[in-house]
Amino acid sequence: MPASPFDGPQPRRETVSGVFSAEEVALANRNSGAMLELLALDVTPLGAHYLLTHFDVPVIDPDTHRLRFEGAFDAPFQIGLDEIRALPQVTMPVTLECAGNGRAGMDPRPFSMPWMYEAVGTAEWTGTPLAPLIERARPRAGVVDFAFEGADHGYDKGVGHAFGRSLTPAELAGLDVLLVHQMNGQPLAPQHGAPLRIVVPGWYGMASVKWLTSITALTERYQGFQQVGTYRFRQTPDEPGAPVTTIRVKSLMVPPGVPDWITRKRLLAPGPVTLRGRAWAGSVPVARVEVLLDGCWQEATLGEPLGRHAWTGWQIDWDAAPGHHVLACRATDADGNTQPLQPEWNLSGFANNAVQCVEVFVER
Amino acid sequence: MPASPFDGPQPRRETVSGVFSAEEVALANRNSGAMLELLALDVTPLGAHYLLTHFDVPVIDPDTHRLRFEGAFDAPFQIGLDEIRALPQVTMPVTLECAGNGRAGMDPRPFSMPWMYEAVGTAEWTGTPLAPLIERARPRAGVVDFAFEGADHGYDKGVGHAFGRSLTPAELAGLDVLLVHQMNGQPLAPQHGAPLRIVVPGWYGMASVKWLTSITALTERYQGFQQVGTYRFRQTPDEPGAPVTTIRVKSLMVPPGVPDWITRKRLLAPGPVTLRGRAWAGSVPVARVEVLLDGCWQEATLGEPLGRHAWTGWQIDWDAAPGHHVLACRATDADGNTQPLQPEWNLSGFANNAVQCVEVFVER
Repeated sequence: MPASPFDGPQPRRETVSGVFSAEEVALANRNSGAMLELLALDVTPLGAHYLLTHFDVPVIDPDTHRLRFEGAFDAPFQIGLDEIRALPQVTMPVTLECAGNGRAGMDPRPFSMPWMYEAVGTAEWTGTPLAPLIERARPRAGVVDFAFEGADHGYDKGVGHAFGRSLTPAELAGLDVLLVHQMNGQPLAPQHGAPLRIVVPGWYGMASVKWLTSITALTERYQGFQQVGTYRFRQTPDEPGAPVTTIRVKSLMVPPGVPDWITRKRLLAPGPVTLRGRAWAGSVPVARVEVLLDGCWQEATLGEPLGRHAWTGWQIDWDAAPGHHVLACRATDADGNTQPLQPEWNLSGFANNAVQCVEVFVER
Repeated sequence: MPASPFDGPQPRRETVSGVFSAEEVALANRNSGAMLELLALDVTPLGAHYLLTHFDVPVIDPDTHRLRFEGAFDAPFQIGLDEIRALPQVTMPVTLECAGNGRAGMDPRPFSMPWMYEAVGTAEWTGTPLAPLIERARPRAGVVDFAFEGADHGYDKGVGHAFGRSLTPAELAGLDVLLVHQMNGQPLAPQHGAPLRIVVPGWYGMASVKWLTSITALTERYQGFQQVGTYRFRQTPDEPGAPVTTIRVKSLMVPPGVPDWITRKRLLAPGPVTLRGRAWAGSVPVARVEVLLDGCWQEATLGEPLGRHAWTGWQIDWDAAPGHHVLACRATDADGNTQPLQPEWNLSGFANNAVQCVEVFVER
């Protein structure tokens, strides 16, 4: 066996926190992350978009499925796929990211799906805007929440429930929520919420309820487990915590060169190379991306954003000198928020937008 | 917080071997496994099929891609997608399984992608039979191997190489190898080998080379790393080991009831329930499936196989009594091979077909 080109000084690890349990690995095997090299593509291919599935994927007959508008509406109704397809259709690129993305980089690591950098993707979503349908159902005065529930159900912390989330009338008014039946021009796949889901642009993925069965107008705040029992920024289990909502500014790099199969360390030829990646900040524009090259943060060139709620490409030229390098990238959004160098810890490991580091060995 | 319905006696774990490393978890995040509940579907949906990607997914322009037949052929040629689509087309359901499926159940656990049960799927593959194309290129007398190389390259154990595998003329003659450009009626997605791959029915997934660029006729045995350096049944690093080839008999169950989100333990109502699953043995028919219910192995009813190289559905009725259960299933193929109760260890963790166990809590 020849000497490995990946031998050399051992740098700090990309991820910390020591060892993982079998339950975490079973979740990682089941839930699909992005392959970082596919960040080279504007739109994530069908089947390469990340998936975080809380319970089991329900298999639903699209021909008989009816979405119910119920609760405190003056004109409640049910609607099927054919009728939804006959309404005005919008196709919109949206970058979705799991609220738990980056969890495995926190120390101590919260016990759940151990995402590192992979839980992000951009699809072209097709459907009809939700707001006019809510208007058609005529919410009563005094409605303070709309609850969105899916056909998927199971247990979390001993509590049985259907997956459900809510948005207030004010939140809905400020968001381009789409009632979606297609992804990348194809009918939704079962695992992406077929036959009907919502996509809530700008918010972490938990808001984009899949397998949608009902929209309920409520005169008191929704108390579903996924709304009040989790997706909160907490330091201790006893505090209520602020809700997880919009996606924080973040960037990722397409790892340059070629990989070592198991460690994913990279080997690169010396000389000029263009580094590329993506940056996003929910529905806030990306203002700048900097890349750590040879010990200095250097400004990358931004492309056009793919859409108002979708990521922005970036690139930067580098003259790769032989040796071992740890590259990093960090984005700043139009509100002035910049990615931190270290994770900001919280009890459930949500919204870690610390910078990505990529180990590269440049051949001598 | 209420008492959890998943409390109770702690049974033996589904997977053993203690703790996992960050590298293993990064691989698990990157490589996608099946969601076991989707075993309910005859054909795995696009995007829910397992993926094991050694290096980076290459993105290839289908309009200019040419497959080269080269080496010891008397009539070497190149062929593009349009020409391949104009040849006789076959659509075939094939069950593919990763040779590393079940690796995480071995103890001590080989260090690589830590699959438990998830690396299996069945797609409808469309393409043209490979054998007539090889004949068209007129292999010379003395050809002993055909090497299939992909556009993906990288390092394994310090050795740089393009992913490549080979089949002998005798192996090719006995196999229905298909040169594939569609999966489930859609053009191949980048991550599944676009624009062109082979599918080798009956063999573990490593043989079904993706991103195929060349087929080389050789008068000496192919020495590519993925053929001789790995995919071998070894007990020690120094022995050559027998090659990993055909898929061993195996079965999986759709976990009944509903899951606990993190542990994936199952909660089920008491009373009659029909358990369902799939069994496969490469290209060998499945002869029987037994299910461990209330301490006895009981015979399940087999459905029709989905195809000559695809899985067979099975089902069995169970009267679920309140309490804690560990269910298991095991298949036997037409050659008389039965799944073992314990993994058969080898150095790289290949071809573990030990029985699946599913923990179920039946409500009181």
